[in-house]
Amino acid sequence: MTPAQNGPAGPQEPSGARVRSVRRLTTRKHREEDGEFLAEGRQAVREAVTYGATVAVWVDRDLAGRHADLLDLALDHHIPVYEVGSRLIATVSDTVTPQGIVAQVTTPEATLDDVVSAAPRLVLVCAQIRDPGNLGAVVRVADAFGAEAVVCTKGSVEWTNPKVVRASVGSVFHLPIVTGVGLDEVTGRLRDTGLQVLAADGGGADLQDYAATGRLARPTAWVMGNEAWGLPTEDAALADAVVGVPIWGRAESLNLATAAAVCLWSTASAQRAGA
Amino acid sequence: MTPAQNGPAGPQEPSGARVRSVRRLTTRKHREEDGEFLAEGRQAVREAVTYGATVAVWVDRDLAGRHADLLDLALDHHIPVYEVGSRLIATVSDTVTPQGIVAQVTTPEATLDDVVSAAPRLVLVCAQIRDPGNLGAVVRVADAFGAEAVVCTKGSVEWTNPKVVRASVGSVFHLPIVTGVGLDEVTGRLRDTGLQVLAADGGGADLQDYAATGRLARPTAWVMGNEAWGLPTEDAALADAVVGVPIWGRAESLNLATAAAVCLWSTASAQRAGA
Repeated sequence: MTPAQNGPAGPQEPSGARVRSVRRLTTRKHREEDGEFLAEGRQAVREAVTYGATVAVWVDRDLAGRHADLLDLALDHHIPVYEVGSRLIATVSDTVTPQGIVAQVTTPEATLDDVVSAAPRLVLVCAQIRDPGNLGAVVRVADAFGAEAVVCTKGSVEWTNPKVVRASVGSVFHLPIVTGVGLDEVTGRLRDTGLQVLAADGGGADLQDYAATGRLARPTAWVMGNEAWGLPTEDAALADAVVGVPIWGRAESLNLATAAAVCLWSTASAQRAGA
Repeated sequence: MTPAQNGPAGPQEPSGARVRSVRRLTTRKHREEDGEFLAEGRQAVREAVTYGATVAVWVDRDLAGRHADLLDLALDHHIPVYEVGSRLIATVSDTVTPQGIVAQVTTPEATLDDVVSAAPRLVLVCAQIRDPGNLGAVVRVADAFGAEAVVCTKGSVEWTNPKVVRASVGSVFHLPIVTGVGLDEVTGRLRDTGLQVLAADGGGADLQDYAATGRLARPTAWVMGNEAWGLPTEDAALADAVVGVPIWGRAESLNLATAAAVCLWSTASAQRAGA
């Protein structure tokens, strides 16, 4: 199959320059330089095509039949589809057994100004989360409970890392993710917009007690700290209150995603009950 | 160091039979035959020694100094400590970079009768959860929110699998885990004991609406289904109600651990508020 035979209405063979453009995206350096990243697997490609700024969809030509629905979806969105060998797909995939389909996506530029001007009621702030699986999981949770944005402070793992994209199960395409801001700046700006800033930390007030005050129904930004060291005192001090999920059994702690789930669920459901 | 020099008050060298007894536990077959399993790493060993029926603690002799506190803890509990080479530790460890310390533990025998006779108020039922990381994570969540037991139905992943133990971060030692029972039996027995049985499934009632009825404060068993196919209709029909965590954003779903966290948190906090 050549582009001449099929034109833009069907799968094409990519030029060498196109192949180089997708290969580069396996490194952070090139993802940042080029402003693009990769989303692999059926679910991620579907969300990328539907909600993202997808530049191209790459498919293993031996598996194109299995992904025909997604290729049609891409073509309907006027996104070029490139059929290539399984070796190239393996090169640009991060998984051991790739599904054979990868989207090449323009990294959206979301700024704190955009977030603030949208007058959000629920925002998740990730303060130096370093593990890509954790960041992806909390982005998914934020999406599930209707948070309007996720803000990653300086020193957080890069959210276009393929492990973050995969762990988010498509949620990175569903809400704006702002990066590279200082915690003092983001907490200050969100507070000025009328959000209370709550730092999630076991050492603080009990979430159940805090919920009982009715204050969870207010517009809220939750700050989740690093998985290993939590929130340093000076970071927690930037919040209006430190509030933790109480542990009622013998577990030492919750993991980041389950703690975020409980905090965001409690807030979103209080806001909806109050509305 | 020989046992003759140190006696039971210090680390010993194991006999060949002892070494064979711990090596066997890397397979499920032998874990079941011998009724023992392994818990590796500092955190798991601490919980195993404190809360489990620990047969022995094995330590890499080159790292014994780093784990001196845990070895003292074991010896205080009259648990033999064996200093061995790093090769044996690597053999019995499931991680790529073992911390050099492993507990050999007798598998506790927990039965549904035990659970029922304790008149529990919060129980988690895992219906054919297959992924060890997921099972470990939900056991941790159940522990955190004070569930009195976890019941794994027939067809669930074996909970003494090292990946489950690790993902639970010590919680497998904190509450009884019953295995190998049919979902019909466990739901029937728990209902007879006065618990409402709620099946967690997105297709059911909205958790927020259900919480608003006040019924979450009742003694409750939550049934979580398989990560891939959820709860088949005939399984959901065994519950008193099907209740799901609502998705307010664009995410397709929550993962098992975050869904379990929200369900168990909502119930435990309603029970505590009502008490």
